[in-house]
Amino acid sequence: TEVKKIAVIAGDGIGPEVVAEAIKVMKRTEELFGLKFEFEHGLFGGIAIDEKGTPLPQETLEICKRADAVLLGAVGGPKWDNNSKELRPETGLLGIRKELGLFSNLRPAVVFDCLKDASTLKPEVLEGTDLIVVRELTGGIYFGEKFRREGAHGEEAVDTCVYNVTEVERIVRQAFEVAQKRRKKLASVDKANVLETSRLWRETVNRIAPDYPDVEVEHVLVDNCAMQLLRRPSSFDVIVTENMFGDILSDEAAMLTGSIGMLSSASLGEGSFGLYEPVHGSAPDIAGQGVANPIATILSVALMYRLTFGYSEAADAIESAVKQVLDAGHRTGDIAADRAQALSTTEMGDLIANAL
Amino acid sequence: TEVKKIAVIAGDGIGPEVVAEAIKVMKRTEELFGLKFEFEHGLFGGIAIDEKGTPLPQETLEICKRADAVLLGAVGGPKWDNNSKELRPETGLLGIRKELGLFSNLRPAVVFDCLKDASTLKPEVLEGTDLIVVRELTGGIYFGEKFRREGAHGEEAVDTCVYNVTEVERIVRQAFEVAQKRRKKLASVDKANVLETSRLWRETVNRIAPDYPDVEVEHVLVDNCAMQLLRRPSSFDVIVTENMFGDILSDEAAMLTGSIGMLSSASLGEGSFGLYEPVHGSAPDIAGQGVANPIATILSVALMYRLTFGYSEAADAIESAVKQVLDAGHRTGDIAADRAQALSTTEMGDLIANAL
Ligand SMILES: CC(C)[C@H](C(=O)O)[C@@H](O)C(=O)O
Ligand SMILES: CC(C)[C@H](C(=O)O)[C@@H](O)C(=O)O
Repeated sequence: TEVKKIAVIAGDGIGPEVVAEAIKVMKRTEELFGLKFEFEHGLFGGIAIDEKGTPLPQETLEICKRADAVLLGAVGGPKWDNNSKELRPETGLLGIRKELGLFSNLRPAVVFDCLKDASTLKPEVLEGTDLIVVRELTGGIYFGEKFRREGAHGEEAVDTCVYNVTEVERIVRQAFEVAQKRRKKLASVDKANVLETSRLWRETVNRIAPDYPDVEVEHVLVDNCAMQLLRRPSSFDVIVTENMFGDILSDEAAMLTGSIGMLSSASLGEGSFGLYEPVHGSAPDIAGQGVANPIATILSVALMYRLTFGYSEAADAIESAVKQVLDAGHRTGDIAADRAQALSTTEMGDLIANAL
Repeated sequence: TEVKKIAVIAGDGIGPEVVAEAIKVMKRTEELFGLKFEFEHGLFGGIAIDEKGTPLPQETLEICKRADAVLLGAVGGPKWDNNSKELRPETGLLGIRKELGLFSNLRPAVVFDCLKDASTLKPEVLEGTDLIVVRELTGGIYFGEKFRREGAHGEEAVDTCVYNVTEVERIVRQAFEVAQKRRKKLASVDKANVLETSRLWRETVNRIAPDYPDVEVEHVLVDNCAMQLLRRPSSFDVIVTENMFGDILSDEAAMLTGSIGMLSSASLGEGSFGLYEPVHGSAPDIAGQGVANPIATILSVALMYRLTFGYSEAADAIESAVKQVLDAGHRTGDIAADRAQALSTTEMGDLIANAL
């Protein structure tokens, strides 16, 4: 078997704890499915600031660049929140996306049976919700020129939102392809009644749509989308949108499922390379206690197997193992009805590895 | 009594129908509270495009400028959706905001008892939700320079988001003042970990906060706010944010109350001048049938009385009359359990006018 190189950047807070369980599961799949991984660890985020003076050390970037896929835990914490821009974990996150060319962020928002009561939405509204947000990740107002200047009315701040047609086309095509493998419905979200970048976006979607005649396309204004996600979440299949709107809508979509602590995500570039991470953050409040839920990170491995490596059998096995363990009533503290009975992070990881 | 001039721009779709009922209520308050209004009507939106070739005719603007307050119905409809930018109703909306200096949009999101089941949120989550979004309305990416250009990767579109410290300060001060009259909690929403305009925003909030020591301030990132609105809506009191974020979050907040068809809004400038309108749109599908719900527009009059004229007694009376009519079980089609029993627009207007 070909050896696959995995860059592991565990990051801050609960990152190292949940990543350790994901690696445990990967090792178990090596035995069971004849896979072979080589892990290389890199510092990233707050811990990299502390130890190397920068959130994204050159060495970490190189580890990622020579890897086939990246497994990321989580970054950030109150310790670094008041740092200057260059010394903040988020800056590392934006840097790694840009440097690795990860222009597409896939965030599936699904409802876990065992968590459907955790949603603040009524169960009958949530019923059948299974959507995925495809967010453009290396363009728009995140990466445009930003500066301060003196104006007629005092100090002024400027952010620039730029999209070129090539950037829009590649993310939209990817979203169409994702939709083709799902329920064949694409909602393209923009603010074309106000923004020039949105008008370019919408034109591009309309130009490309004929190449995917099996996919039904709907244009939704971003404000309306924020409403429709609440009103009819199950009617969405794939949502594609630009960076800033995607940031907001993917979090809204994740939260409404009630399953945010269990959701995984993939950031992809050209080719099969990808970065995989849980949607939840570094949870500094419970870090180091061994109580974090590793499931979102373990499910990120399943995404990696499927999207980067095409190991669909092993991916299915991981997802079934998670389901089996949950169906048997095993819970970590965040999802337990009775916290006293809750499993530790490693116990949950063991159960899933053994259920494979 | 001093005569107050009201500019009435009924607009499109159900606009004229609901505005007529609001005027009926205003006339009734003239008799009961010794008020005196002079109404001047202007064309705006789609109908102005059809009749005058522009969504915001100069004459309408002048009617507004010489008025003490503006009552707006709704604008837009499929008929004008594919027009070029200058011939779209939204362009009129942006124009009127800018021309009248309406830099602040207040959108109360409250739950009506008779509609609490209409929300897709669980009643126990919604319980006690009563928040107001204060949205900056004449700056940011809506009004910054926008253009196309040829770039290295094909056609490029650019939008510019600009805020100066004066613009931020005036909206933030207004939000603090709103909070002081309410539960004294202000959530300032930005994306300070990414945007320069957000960093200026946050600095300004922090600089001004000491002037309002009785108000508790919290900074919330926009993606997190989209989540927290779902998770803990009742914990918010006043939310202040920039134009684009406010567009998205105010719609999300309105929808989660389940009462979107009943919500009113105010757009204010310096001084007491204001534009008042229902949050709902022009509803072309039911226009002209006499079945639209006039309550949001009638409640916009109550907002006008309170915020522009200081007629708090009459404002209270309108709100009580609406409550009384609803408590007695009267409903228009949109909020009726049994549509066959639903009242017409004018019947609802009459009942409220008579309940005053
Ligand atoms: C931390 C922040 C810069 C980041 C973003 O806005 O992209 C985060 O919110 C995310 O969604 O991954
Ligand atoms: C129609 C559109 C331009 C407008 C806006 O985005 O401001 C609308 O969504 C609103 O919120 O009043």
